[in-house]
Amino acid sequence: MHIHDDRPSRVGVAIVGLGGAVATTVVAGIELLRQGNATTQGLPLAELDPTFTAELPPYESLIFGGWDLYADNLANAARIHNVLTPAQLEQAGPALEQISPWPAAGNPNFCRNVEGEHQIEMVSHRATVEQICTDLRHFRQEQRLEGVVMVNLASTERRTDVSLPVFASLDAFERALDANSPEIGPAMLYAYAAIAEDTPYVNFTPSVAVDIPALMEFAERRGVPVAGKDGKTGQTMLKTVIASALRSRALHVDGWFSTNILGNRDGQALADAESLQSKLTTKSTVIDQILGYRVEDHVVYIHYYRPRGDNKEAWDNIDISGFLGQPMQLKVNFLCRDSVLAAPLVIELARLMELAQRRGMVGIQEQLGYFFKLPMTAAPEIVPEHALHVQEQRMLAWLANDVANPLERSVG
Amino acid sequence: MHIHDDRPSRVGVAIVGLGGAVATTVVAGIELLRQGNATTQGLPLAELDPTFTAELPPYESLIFGGWDLYADNLANAARIHNVLTPAQLEQAGPALEQISPWPAAGNPNFCRNVEGEHQIEMVSHRATVEQICTDLRHFRQEQRLEGVVMVNLASTERRTDVSLPVFASLDAFERALDANSPEIGPAMLYAYAAIAEDTPYVNFTPSVAVDIPALMEFAERRGVPVAGKDGKTGQTMLKTVIASALRSRALHVDGWFSTNILGNRDGQALADAESLQSKLTTKSTVIDQILGYRVEDHVVYIHYYRPRGDNKEAWDNIDISGFLGQPMQLKVNFLCRDSVLAAPLVIELARLMELAQRRGMVGIQEQLGYFFKLPMTAAPEIVPEHALHVQEQRMLAWLANDVANPLERSVG
Amino acid sequence: MHIHDDRPSRVGVAIVGLGGAVATTVVAGIELLRQGNATTQGLPLAELDPTFTAELPPYESLIFGGWDLYADNLANAARIHNVLTPAQLEQAGPALEQISPWPAAGNPNFCRNVEGEHQIEMVSHRATVEQICTDLRHFRQEQRLEGVVMVNLASTERRTDVSLPVFASLDAFERALDANSPEIGPAMLYAYAAIAEDTPYVNFTPSVAVDIPALMEFAERRGVPVAGKDGKTGQTMLKTVIASALRSRALHVDGWFSTNILGNRDGQALADAESLQSKLTTKSTVIDQILGYRVEDHVVYIHYYRPRGDNKEAWDNIDISGFLGQPMQLKVNFLCRDSVLAAPLVIELARLMELAQRRGMVGIQEQLGYFFKLPMTAAPEIVPEHALHVQEQRMLAWLANDVANPLERSVG
Amino acid sequence: MHIHDDRPSRVGVAIVGLGGAVATTVVAGIELLRQGNATTQGLPLAELDPTFTAELPPYESLIFGGWDLYADNLANAARIHNVLTPAQLEQAGPALEQISPWPAAGNPNFCRNVEGEHQIEMVSHRATVEQICTDLRHFRQEQRLEGVVMVNLASTERRTDVSLPVFASLDAFERALDANSPEIGPAMLYAYAAIAEDTPYVNFTPSVAVDIPALMEFAERRGVPVAGKDGKTGQTMLKTVIASALRSRALHVDGWFSTNILGNRDGQALADAESLQSKLTTKSTVIDQILGYRVEDHVVYIHYYRPRGDNKEAWDNIDISGFLGQPMQLKVNFLCRDSVLAAPLVIELARLMELAQRRGMVGIQEQLGYFFKLPMTAAPEIVPEHALHVQEQRMLAWLANDVANPLERSVG
Repeated sequence: MHIHDDRPSRVGVAIVGLGGAVATTVVAGIELLRQGNATTQGLPLAELDPTFTAELPPYESLIFGGWDLYADNLANAARIHNVLTPAQLEQAGPALEQISPWPAAGNPNFCRNVEGEHQIEMVSHRATVEQICTDLRHFRQEQRLEGVVMVNLASTERRTDVSLPVFASLDAFERALDANSPEIGPAMLYAYAAIAEDTPYVNFTPSVAVDIPALMEFAERRGVPVAGKDGKTGQTMLKTVIASALRSRALHVDGWFSTNILGNRDGQALADAESLQSKLTTKSTVIDQILGYRVEDHVVYIHYYRPRGDNKEAWDNIDISGFLGQPMQLKVNFLCRDSVLAAPLVIELARLMELAQRRGMVGIQEQLGYFFKLPMTAAPEIVPEHALHVQEQRMLAWLANDVANPLERSVG
Repeated sequence: MHIHDDRPSRVGVAIVGLGGAVATTVVAGIELLRQGNATTQGLPLAELDPTFTAELPPYESLIFGGWDLYADNLANAARIHNVLTPAQLEQAGPALEQISPWPAAGNPNFCRNVEGEHQIEMVSHRATVEQICTDLRHFRQEQRLEGVVMVNLASTERRTDVSLPVFASLDAFERALDANSPEIGPAMLYAYAAIAEDTPYVNFTPSVAVDIPALMEFAERRGVPVAGKDGKTGQTMLKTVIASALRSRALHVDGWFSTNILGNRDGQALADAESLQSKLTTKSTVIDQILGYRVEDHVVYIHYYRPRGDNKEAWDNIDISGFLGQPMQLKVNFLCRDSVLAAPLVIELARLMELAQRRGMVGIQEQLGYFFKLPMTAAPEIVPEHALHVQEQRMLAWLANDVANPLERSVG
Repeated sequence: MHIHDDRPSRVGVAIVGLGGAVATTVVAGIELLRQGNATTQGLPLAELDPTFTAELPPYESLIFGGWDLYADNLANAARIHNVLTPAQLEQAGPALEQISPWPAAGNPNFCRNVEGEHQIEMVSHRATVEQICTDLRHFRQEQRLEGVVMVNLASTERRTDVSLPVFASLDAFERALDANSPEIGPAMLYAYAAIAEDTPYVNFTPSVAVDIPALMEFAERRGVPVAGKDGKTGQTMLKTVIASALRSRALHVDGWFSTNILGNRDGQALADAESLQSKLTTKSTVIDQILGYRVEDHVVYIHYYRPRGDNKEAWDNIDISGFLGQPMQLKVNFLCRDSVLAAPLVIELARLMELAQRRGMVGIQEQLGYFFKLPMTAAPEIVPEHALHVQEQRMLAWLANDVANPLERSVG
Repeated sequence: MHIHDDRPSRVGVAIVGLGGAVATTVVAGIELLRQGNATTQGLPLAELDPTFTAELPPYESLIFGGWDLYADNLANAARIHNVLTPAQLEQAGPALEQISPWPAAGNPNFCRNVEGEHQIEMVSHRATVEQICTDLRHFRQEQRLEGVVMVNLASTERRTDVSLPVFASLDAFERALDANSPEIGPAMLYAYAAIAEDTPYVNFTPSVAVDIPALMEFAERRGVPVAGKDGKTGQTMLKTVIASALRSRALHVDGWFSTNILGNRDGQALADAESLQSKLTTKSTVIDQILGYRVEDHVVYIHYYRPRGDNKEAWDNIDISGFLGQPMQLKVNFLCRDSVLAAPLVIELARLMELAQRRGMVGIQEQLGYFFKLPMTAAPEIVPEHALHVQEQRMLAWLANDVANPLERSVG
């Protein structure tokens, strides 16, 4: 197998939340790779056989732009987030300084804690969408891009009720746009604009965005691939892996207590969103799907805890019963770096979505469930696959164009 | 698919170390299942679709006998090990009381810490082998068994150098047997006897037994299936699962520090064996195989710590590097019950090995690597698969007789 | 020094919440001690030199009665709580069966989650108080008691605003009693009745009870010793000890994250009370007092988590800075048994309060701060001592009647 | 109270192992304090009331010199140890560059793992002692010092049998010196030289140095104060604190399992010394003294684990029994920085020993047990106090010259 000649050499990545900790790590990471000052360590697809990756655009082809509520250039933003080492900041600095975010769409009703001044003037939903579309077109032209992918990395918005009538069809949504409906938040406006501009869209956050019937219809109609949602980085990634092992060994989960402490700007928004939604949302079904039964006592807490900054810490306690009903405990303590885990997934998603569009894929890209805590499915009643190794096999089969052997999980 | 009519209804399981904590849990567990006082929780194959399990002998078909250096009947032995609850002890007690171990082969040069009085008189290696063979024949006749499987659950012997000339061929081994060579330990005598009696043999311990060229040759020649070695129960099982996830996410393992505390009789022998072998043995390659590179700083300690009894505790610290070389730490603390994790694997192995013999399988059963820390391979240079989900898929493919689709790992 | 002859041989302990997990452990514990089936392990004063303990009533002198919203006799209650071992349940059972709680005062506005049927008919506050007083008098007479101490072990009530005018003076409180003020909860009614009956009162819970100006005035006026509040058992006890060490070594606490999981009936009430009060209460000052500065990021969560029952688990993460500002982390994971830690403190408090009354002590017994998370002080602006070893020294000095040497902490 | 006028303004600290991680942190720390680029955080005596500290020499009075087997100047050494931040390295760099160690006494029989080239030529024990004495005199003269204190921070030597006849008296030791006895290691030579030069001597390592009868006799005879041994920094400090609390609450320790991972140069020597001595040494009595009984299952492991460098990690598991014999577990995980915890203790010891000499104190300074894992006592049969708060009180009483109130622990 040879490396494809038709791979693009300039792929735009338009990031919502470009000044955030994850986004600046993404941009700096690609810059350091270009310079030879970083390796591909941490990039899940980097070491794969070319059978799988020959068609993907190279890492160095990625070119970044995007929106943020803070106007800081990316060098200044990265300095505040304190993710990069001093040496990395210095090496990537000159390139990061060249990139400043475009004014962003913000709405304090959707994300209270994080407020910035660098905003698109919110005259109307339609005007905001138009501005985003214009930004995308300018980005493509000025940077002479062969393709553009939009990735949502903005701070988490509070949970929205996806079953509202305004979200039920594209038609209803268009009318709500016209009427400046307060139910429509910034994440949806970005997703709508992306689709309108035939730009593959990835939602890496828990916010409600493309995952409403109206926008899924829109994506199908315009033939745009979309993917989401909520990057599966630290604790959840490990949970899906451990749950798979417990299921394999028939160890019963009696309870699962997860707590997180996180001190960055996104953590603040997340903890806030979490508390706001507490009465609306149903419990996550992630581990239930893997285990094949409902865990009654499954609780997940996210706490904003300033001393940590971007250094997230997760502590899980899992109560299990083994043979003859005997109880055991498993405790997992993960001292991770939020942005360091997220950034490489964002980079791979940008490459994969560009390929999806080139391959003519449309709508929800279920083969990319590997990257998400809550993989989108075609309909609410379809439970997504959460086991990491099954998700990985599906993605690899798709990458290899191995349609005959979808590597489906064969166990009841 | 229907349940097969030719499944045996009386399968003997001859256990070396029948009075140990794992063995008594195995025997009590099957008895409680028969009584309806236990469920199949913790038995990995219990909930599988009959596509996979229809040919296996039922759990209730298993009938137990075996050897031990202590003469206690199994009710008394189980009481000492303190694994079963008082209620379980009471329910299984009458059945356990009926079973007393046969005198066992012991050798203080191979296992110093655990000494019992209930021994086969060690006149010569040949006489010991003959006694074990006689025991197996009596067991089969008296219990009217359709098949017998031998499982080694004896305390760990100190490490032996498998490259010694006496182990290199069946011929050399036979001569060493005749000469009562001090290099031949009890575990090998049992394995030799099992093969001589056409009895499938499982080594669930780290001891050197069938895993020498001489006995693999013997098994091939007589057409007997063998499997091993060292049950993959708690910490190692989790390690293989976590290492797979880290590899999948391209997170680099800089170091892995594992420590165990265990206070039962086997723990004492294990800690002793461990320290005796410290200069001989090479580091385990388990996680190296999964990760695809050598982890320089991988250390594993096993400490005998009396207060815990059968309640094992494992503490792992994993130092990893992510994108841009940034360090993170993952700590796993497993408060498990050694025998509760091991017993169901022993039960499944007995069923699987009976089926292997019925299917005419011969020699090393590589498709059962799922159960072992150190899966045996045909030759020392063949590195076994250690990733749990890949091992599971191989076992399931074999169970389903799915020869065309061996579900091999397709990733470079 | 000789054991005093005037020590009482029959001391009544009237417990609010007699059927709870802690109370049944207290009663069973003393019974098992009497039988010789338990040792004094876990009783802080048991091994002290008689210099300190010669005047205290013996453990065996304690005789129990009390109120509960559930009518179960203590044997049945203890079975539900699952704290005692089967053997202990059997040994203490006959004695526990003889004790059934008296109907209790309950009020769903103060404690929502725990509801029982075994209630004093709530005609009026005055009638409730009268009933409690009658119960105390009957208890004293029927059991021929030389002294009685009341201990509050009832489920936590929601936080009350102690600065309300009705609590500001005995006079105002009396009028509020007459008016059946909804601000007055059950815990206050019990405390009022205890004082009215000249019965030393201990509040082992976080509920607001005697710790309002009105009742402190009442206690002073009637000459009754009172103590509280909130037993310092597991996590907080350790926190005060670790904080003292950090202060001693001048290690700065940058943040302290504490989380608890607890699955018993009290845990449910506590988690509920916790969430109800979240906006009212100020952060705990426990570690601030010890450290000598305010820890900005100090958070404490209590989560009801059913799988654990009475087995509490606390997980603390402490972020500290050392010399040259370098950060370190300390993590403490305590797998404890709530009632097993609390019961011996309750027993010692009953003995100490009987002695306090005999010695003519009146009002808040500050020398007993050793037992409490939130030691009461004479006025809100007086910050109590929280360091365990200082508290211990003060208690011991009082016990030894060593007035000249109060062993005050001499460090700035 | 006023600050004393007779405090020295130039106090020499002659460090054995000047190029090590702890020593370079000590020297850099004082330099950063002088510059105003560091605070006194982490220095235990810094915040105390002048009642206690008015006589001590100021931090800024300390002036450093010393020996090391590596010739690197301290700026280069500090860079290798990677304890200081880049900013701290830069600020302290110019001062550190000015200091280079004097050639040191080394002996591979006593410390195998750490070998350097910068050695005193070992012609004879007497010549080595003479060289050390000469170094001390030059240091004093060149730096115009008012006092000098020697501190041993060299890598741990293997354990020596302190009961050998050559160590039993000064006379025997002098003869062994003359005879170049192989039983005498470098640490003893340094201690001998210090005493010969009337220089207070502190042993901050576990090596055998002044803690032999011969040298204690020498110190007494010459009137020199000595202190040791083995700095009580991370895990042991916490253990003494937690053990005190468990004793206070009468919680019985059934077992204590401690493991450490450490990856710096000293860790390597320590792990090696540990394994060499394993058969000679008796178990530590630290927690036994505090608890008042012998913990049968107390094990402590130190493992060299390279990925951590100077970042030490300790993991403790404590099995305890509470009231009614019920078992609980306490686990403590300390992610600390070895040198950051040790350096401030070294600084305080230097100040305290200068004061001790000025006050005319002679021999073992028992009031400084607060700083040591194994406080020296006048005779082997005298068990030292290990409880941190008691040690602290004794030190403070001495500092305050409070002879009448030695603040002795008053509890049986």
